[in-house]
Amino acid sequence: MRYISDLNEGDNISDVYLCKYKVQAETRNGKPYFNVILQDKTGTLDAKVWEPNSDGIADFDSMDYIYVFGDVSRYQGALQASLRRIKVARDGEYIPSDYLPVSPFNNDNMYTDLKAVIETVKNPNLNKLLKSFFIEDEEFIKAFRMRSAAKTIHHSFVGGLMQHTLAVTRLCKYYTKAYPALNHDLLISASLLHDIGKVREISGFPQNDYTDDGQLLGHIVMGSEMIAEKARAIPEFPPKLLSELQHCILAHHGEYEFGSPKKPALMEALALNMADNTDAKMETMSEIMSELTVEKKGQWLGYNKLFESNIRKAGDW
Amino acid sequence: MRYISDLNEGDNISDVYLCKYKVQAETRNGKPYFNVILQDKTGTLDAKVWEPNSDGIADFDSMDYIYVFGDVSRYQGALQASLRRIKVARDGEYIPSDYLPVSPFNNDNMYTDLKAVIETVKNPNLNKLLKSFFIEDEEFIKAFRMRSAAKTIHHSFVGGLMQHTLAVTRLCKYYTKAYPALNHDLLISASLLHDIGKVREISGFPQNDYTDDGQLLGHIVMGSEMIAEKARAIPEFPPKLLSELQHCILAHHGEYEFGSPKKPALMEALALNMADNTDAKMETMSEIMSELTVEKKGQWLGYNKLFESNIRKAGDW
Amino acid sequence: MRYISDLNEGDNISDVYLCKYKVQAETRNGKPYFNVILQDKTGTLDAKVWEPNSDGIADFDSMDYIYVFGDVSRYQGALQASLRRIKVARDGEYIPSDYLPVSPFNNDNMYTDLKAVIETVKNPNLNKLLKSFFIEDEEFIKAFRMRSAAKTIHHSFVGGLMQHTLAVTRLCKYYTKAYPALNHDLLISASLLHDIGKVREISGFPQNDYTDDGQLLGHIVMGSEMIAEKARAIPEFPPKLLSELQHCILAHHGEYEFGSPKKPALMEALALNMADNTDAKMETMSEIMSELTVEKKGQWLGYNKLFESNIRKAGDW
Amino acid sequence: MRYISDLNEGDNISDVYLCKYKVQAETRNGKPYFNVILQDKTGTLDAKVWEPNSDGIADFDSMDYIYVFGDVSRYQGALQASLRRIKVARDGEYIPSDYLPVSPFNNDNMYTDLKAVIETVKNPNLNKLLKSFFIEDEEFIKAFRMRSAAKTIHHSFVGGLMQHTLAVTRLCKYYTKAYPALNHDLLISASLLHDIGKVREISGFPQNDYTDDGQLLGHIVMGSEMIAEKARAIPEFPPKLLSELQHCILAHHGEYEFGSPKKPALMEALALNMADNTDAKMETMSEIMSELTVEKKGQWLGYNKLFESNIRKAGDW
Amino acid sequence: MRYISDLNEGDNISDVYLCKYKVQAETRNGKPYFNVILQDKTGTLDAKVWEPNSDGIADFDSMDYIYVFGDVSRYQGALQASLRRIKVARDGEYIPSDYLPVSPFNNDNMYTDLKAVIETVKNPNLNKLLKSFFIEDEEFIKAFRMRSAAKTIHHSFVGGLMQHTLAVTRLCKYYTKAYPALNHDLLISASLLHDIGKVREISGFPQNDYTDDGQLLGHIVMGSEMIAEKARAIPEFPPKLLSELQHCILAHHGEYEFGSPKKPALMEALALNMADNTDAKMETMSEIMSELTVEKKGQWLGYNKLFESNIRKAGDW
Amino acid sequence: MRYISDLNEGDNISDVYLCKYKVQAETRNGKPYFNVILQDKTGTLDAKVWEPNSDGIADFDSMDYIYVFGDVSRYQGALQASLRRIKVARDGEYIPSDYLPVSPFNNDNMYTDLKAVIETVKNPNLNKLLKSFFIEDEEFIKAFRMRSAAKTIHHSFVGGLMQHTLAVTRLCKYYTKAYPALNHDLLISASLLHDIGKVREISGFPQNDYTDDGQLLGHIVMGSEMIAEKARAIPEFPPKLLSELQHCILAHHGEYEFGSPKKPALMEALALNMADNTDAKMETMSEIMSELTVEKKGQWLGYNKLFESNIRKAGDW
Repeated sequence: MRYISDLNEGDNISDVYLCKYKVQAETRNGKPYFNVILQDKTGTLDAKVWEPNSDGIADFDSMDYIYVFGDVSRYQGALQASLRRIKVARDGEYIPSDYLPVSPFNNDNMYTDLKAVIETVKNPNLNKLLKSFFIEDEEFIKAFRMRSAAKTIHHSFVGGLMQHTLAVTRLCKYYTKAYPALNHDLLISASLLHDIGKVREISGFPQNDYTDDGQLLGHIVMGSEMIAEKARAIPEFPPKLLSELQHCILAHHGEYEFGSPKKPALMEALALNMADNTDAKMETMSEIMSELTVEKKGQWLGYNKLFESNIRKAGDW
Repeated sequence: MRYISDLNEGDNISDVYLCKYKVQAETRNGKPYFNVILQDKTGTLDAKVWEPNSDGIADFDSMDYIYVFGDVSRYQGALQASLRRIKVARDGEYIPSDYLPVSPFNNDNMYTDLKAVIETVKNPNLNKLLKSFFIEDEEFIKAFRMRSAAKTIHHSFVGGLMQHTLAVTRLCKYYTKAYPALNHDLLISASLLHDIGKVREISGFPQNDYTDDGQLLGHIVMGSEMIAEKARAIPEFPPKLLSELQHCILAHHGEYEFGSPKKPALMEALALNMADNTDAKMETMSEIMSELTVEKKGQWLGYNKLFESNIRKAGDW
Repeated sequence: MRYISDLNEGDNISDVYLCKYKVQAETRNGKPYFNVILQDKTGTLDAKVWEPNSDGIADFDSMDYIYVFGDVSRYQGALQASLRRIKVARDGEYIPSDYLPVSPFNNDNMYTDLKAVIETVKNPNLNKLLKSFFIEDEEFIKAFRMRSAAKTIHHSFVGGLMQHTLAVTRLCKYYTKAYPALNHDLLISASLLHDIGKVREISGFPQNDYTDDGQLLGHIVMGSEMIAEKARAIPEFPPKLLSELQHCILAHHGEYEFGSPKKPALMEALALNMADNTDAKMETMSEIMSELTVEKKGQWLGYNKLFESNIRKAGDW
Repeated sequence: MRYISDLNEGDNISDVYLCKYKVQAETRNGKPYFNVILQDKTGTLDAKVWEPNSDGIADFDSMDYIYVFGDVSRYQGALQASLRRIKVARDGEYIPSDYLPVSPFNNDNMYTDLKAVIETVKNPNLNKLLKSFFIEDEEFIKAFRMRSAAKTIHHSFVGGLMQHTLAVTRLCKYYTKAYPALNHDLLISASLLHDIGKVREISGFPQNDYTDDGQLLGHIVMGSEMIAEKARAIPEFPPKLLSELQHCILAHHGEYEFGSPKKPALMEALALNMADNTDAKMETMSEIMSELTVEKKGQWLGYNKLFESNIRKAGDW
Repeated sequence: MRYISDLNEGDNISDVYLCKYKVQAETRNGKPYFNVILQDKTGTLDAKVWEPNSDGIADFDSMDYIYVFGDVSRYQGALQASLRRIKVARDGEYIPSDYLPVSPFNNDNMYTDLKAVIETVKNPNLNKLLKSFFIEDEEFIKAFRMRSAAKTIHHSFVGGLMQHTLAVTRLCKYYTKAYPALNHDLLISASLLHDIGKVREISGFPQNDYTDDGQLLGHIVMGSEMIAEKARAIPEFPPKLLSELQHCILAHHGEYEFGSPKKPALMEALALNMADNTDAKMETMSEIMSELTVEKKGQWLGYNKLFESNIRKAGDW
Repeated sequence: MRYISDLNEGDNISDVYLCKYKVQAETRNGKPYFNVILQDKTGTLDAKVWEPNSDGIADFDSMDYIYVFGDVSRYQGALQASLRRIKVARDGEYIPSDYLPVSPFNNDNMYTDLKAVIETVKNPNLNKLLKSFFIEDEEFIKAFRMRSAAKTIHHSFVGGLMQHTLAVTRLCKYYTKAYPALNHDLLISASLLHDIGKVREISGFPQNDYTDDGQLLGHIVMGSEMIAEKARAIPEFPPKLLSELQHCILAHHGEYEFGSPKKPALMEALALNMADNTDAKMETMSEIMSELTVEKKGQWLGYNKLFESNIRKAGDW
């Protein structure tokens, strides 16, 4: 396919794109038309459908993958497409990963790594619990592997939730060696499960937006509840172990003002909070730094709200 | 019985008291003895058991109700009892309410009132849910009727949780009239259920202290989970209604720093937060004001940490 | 009259509207014209006076009620009027309530209710004080009945100050029953008087904006001073009662950062603070919810700065 | 007289001291006695009256100046007096300044300086207003000259209020030269009047404690009201000038959290806030530094809550 | 020269201006042109270079002083120049102070004053240290005399750093008289040196922007280090005196959140903090007030972020 | 030697202990005596020298190592020694590590590890800089190896500074693998140097207390300055690299309120901040958890100020 970033003034387009946005408008003289935004993984393109009721224009909605036919011109300095024909594409006629931002890590590999980590959890109850999510619950697995870890800021791509989960878990694994007072199985289980509520908080791609439940309840409380439900189905699961595990989930944002209803009271909860915070901030910074064009490398990038500072890349000494 | 507040130097005591605290100590010359604190609803009394291994001293633990026999003397300005005989009392040999602070409102009456409120909730799912707690779950009912609403500060007496729940619910009832945009059934259900997690957060009297689960998970999250569990047993319960109800519970402290993982997003959640905050503060102030002795009435009572101000009672104009 | 919300492209207008805004501008070729905004209670309309010096155009200023004659066209998607003739309307030629947002409650009824509340205050000094404002001071009464309770956010309509005062007073009345330790007469007097400083803080409609004194001194301090002045004219008014009443006014915002120079030190001051806060927040939410169009009902309304949360209406279960 | 700081074990005392505190107590065997604290400007001394009902013991209360006769012994490392006779002293039999901390500056000189400053205020209305307080109102003048500027921390001595007022006014005078945009007469008037509410907020010596009005209303609001009352008695006093002056008083603490109901909106209010803050902090530090004994000079003095830091004196380089 | 504020529609221009900004753009039909902003001390002027490649257009960059030839027209209500010829001006062909905002105080006079203050510092080590900066280090002197004290807000003009330094030092001089516990030489030295790090933090005019070091290290730390370096070159400089002096620099912002790594622990550090804060705020307010046009004098100027209040000028009573 | 934790009532002691504290006191009848606290690495012991002027009592001061001869008795429940003879011990007569808390890790091994890390820094300037501290500066090395990382809370033992430095550096090493956008040499250098200012901030054992410079300047600023000094002695050290390195030191506390004058602006500064924060918190928690006696293992340990929560150890599942 022809990626949006490669289009030039004067080009014809006849390819499948994701319709990110569609709204009806009216010209000055009252003629209806459509404002449309097309998307692929390289960017977005404004488009107009001047004859929305003409023959070649099928019914379509935002978030549909659509075949579009038209030409590209320049308007007020930016590229813009006029679309003459539109056809909704069917599953299989396009490769979703062409249209969505995806993790730089291979999804299958990440999942294999994650399963390997589960095997290191020897406590039989925790091991069973982890498998009830990551091995046995196919609907959950599918969602978990595809979701982002956030709407924006960091890991906001397909596979982002799994990538973040793995990164946090690896950090926790490192901690268990550096600080032997930690309970390995509790911490690794908590880190693998810490963000599972996000499969209910954020809708799947291409929307990747907060759900109703996400806004009302949040991933912290939903994740804790999901764990309780599955653990209760394991007869011999010790209630106190469940409470400790749920506590780690509830406290993993570390501070009340970040939405945790409890501050870390267990060393494992503290460790999870450190690992989650470290990966969130380091990954955000990594994504900013790796997107830098050459000429931006030595320059200040402006005030960054998350880091409350103007930021720039260090030199290549 | 002879209340602790009525004892004088030189009195004999032979009555049942609650043993609030018991610890073994040693005299300078190495003889073991017991330090004991006796409690009834009027106060506490230090006591010593100088011959812990003598015949008349039965095995007993803290939180037992015990018959004690001994005399009262004065040591370093305070009353103190020397106990010669101790016998553990059996259920029925004492009236617990003699030993514990109790709500000034009759427990049966409050429960009757609460059941009447449930009848005003016409939505069948919410009505069923309320009944599954307050009418059908006997273990829950027993705990709910006996618990305090807090370890200290306000409503820290037997029946306090029910009294607070009723007061908040009545305020919410008032709001539904003053602000008709409120959904009556959702708000009243939320107010009746808002603190039910406290039956797991605070242990029953006489301990009345935070439980392990209370400290790890907190009543907000546990209450939300308890509701989810019962609601899922009602087949037709709309998931979105459940989410809205859980949201009201999660947000009822109003601010992250007070332990709510969500800020009120629904008008009903806001109303519940207002009512809970109002009753907590007004009841605290009421309890302070109604305990004032005559000579304290016109005086400043000193800096109060909760209200961040020196406080005093207004004149009787 | 023809309301602005009923106007269409192509209509002629010849009616009285409030001139909310008027400013002289110049066309590219240097011809002067007027930009004018017309207002009635249903909305606003941009208008142009292309020939400001022609015969039919009388002198007029912003905040005048004016007869306008012209036609309505559409420019850049919005309606716009071209005005050919303008005449200032005299008192009596229009009904102000057609042009201003008004309380949904009848002004006379609210005033009757308020007078009835005053009769429940039995303390003769407080009763006299209330009457010196609400019964005897005609200028004050007129202002109090017409003012809004705020420039924006909540109760920002004619009668809003009285509506808010009544709502707060009714909440306080409810509290006096729920928390008998409260001094009824002190609390009800304080609630009736708590916002009277707003008649000096916010100018009358149609301006409804902060006055110079409002910005320099604020309604809290001005209200307290107004009460002191009238109370000193009642010879037997006890100075300590006056101090307690003024304290309730000064502390009714509850926190320093909300402009109260004192935190509540009396139970009545605390109660007034709770009631004021409850009505301010609940009324704001009510106004948002009752303005919702049908299609907005189930949707999230976006981040609300006051409530620090995205908000939405609960379902109609 | 013999100052408390000069007393030794074994001394007889027969002098007038201020009775700072008096309370009845009981010995172990039930005999009543008095615990008394004697004070002069050099310190305090614990004393006992073992025979409170003996002939030579006249009626006396705390805050009385009393002749005491007895001897000094040492108990648990500290000096203690046993008093055999007590007689209430009459005005004229003692010099109050021997018993109270006093400003290091001569009271008459400060008052003369203050009157001279008033003469530099040329605006006739402000000049009249200042004189109505500082020249004509004898009761006010007496209180103003004797009061402290604070219960503790800084200027907590007789004359402290006047000393602080002068120091702030002199700083403001300096500002009028350094920043010519300031209105001299408004600023100097505001600085002279900024703390006059303290004559109602803090009771006179020897109590020097917060009054009921002080706690309910505070010196900021009371001072503003006192100014309004006197200004209204000057017929031609411009209301807007009064509002600006009151604003300076209301805003002089600079921040809501320090009890100002308004933030400085006028340059003069800002200047007054800067001057008040500077003198309060610098005088506090001065008092700490000038009390240092020789051996303390190079040492750290421990964490100081006001300055949120461990503090020490700089070297004498 | 013809100042920008004096230009009118239709004028020809042929004068030297500072090119504040230059960027290449493209017309709709793809023709390149330059957008340029010209600046002098009276304001800025938008300009277009429609034929950037024509003969008369020399190479130039932003921050160059350039001769421009063209005419002034009006576009969308604002003046705009079309430039036909451009030539880079050489040093000497223009007077920089015509193009840059400059302190209202004469630079030489300020420097003379500053040298006079140094003579009042009698401690030989401090005196030597001050001279090593302000008398002997020519590069430093040149920068110090030309720099602003801030990028925006206050003293953001040529000579601003020296003007602010002098104002703070004079305030400190005043304090040494009002609070004799202060060490004069330490305080005056600290005030003279407190902002010297700004010569490395902010680049010289016309850029007047934060440097790389300024953003990474800040003027507080750099100033402290500069002092340490020069002091170490004075053999007998007492290390403890150096630490006290560096402390004053480090603590002069007074609070951690304003970038001070230490809170004032010495009275001299506190005094410097008070003086710096006073001059920063008073000068900011002065600059706002002195720029007021006549018609703005009685009006509210809108919410000011620094002062967290709507502000206005007091009346001329 | 006989450790303090092994002493019992009735024992004789004749061993070297560290005299942690010594102060002269007086018995009731005026006889002078010494209160002394003896310390070894297992704890402290109160001791009295009743005959301070007797022959066998040599001159000694607090922080001396002293031979003491006497007996142990029990007073008010605690052990106490009466000392008859005291002699100051000389270097070599005792092993300091018997008296001071020491890191659980071997000092030589840690130093060897640290030197190995330096070899992984390939940038020649950074490598030289690190060696100028850790290989070449013997006085620095000695202090660095012996110092604690804090007065209390965590790593407050001999070798603590090196142990913390290594732990932070290893975390950073891990980060360089997990987040390849990091500059390895800059980050590892910064982590090795981040707390070197503590050798000037905290005095050596046994005092282990804040120095004068520590309180005035702090380890952050002093460390930054120490780096600058050594780097300037390396002729080709790039100034911009030095600024980036100093920035990492200055920003490593992450927030202004924790004493950092800059927030992290470079990814390496952010990483160092994460690692420092993680090790400080995890090590604190580790030290608390590893000190738990068996019976404390399942129990809540009470509110912990640092973690703002009641804490307990997780179960051994």
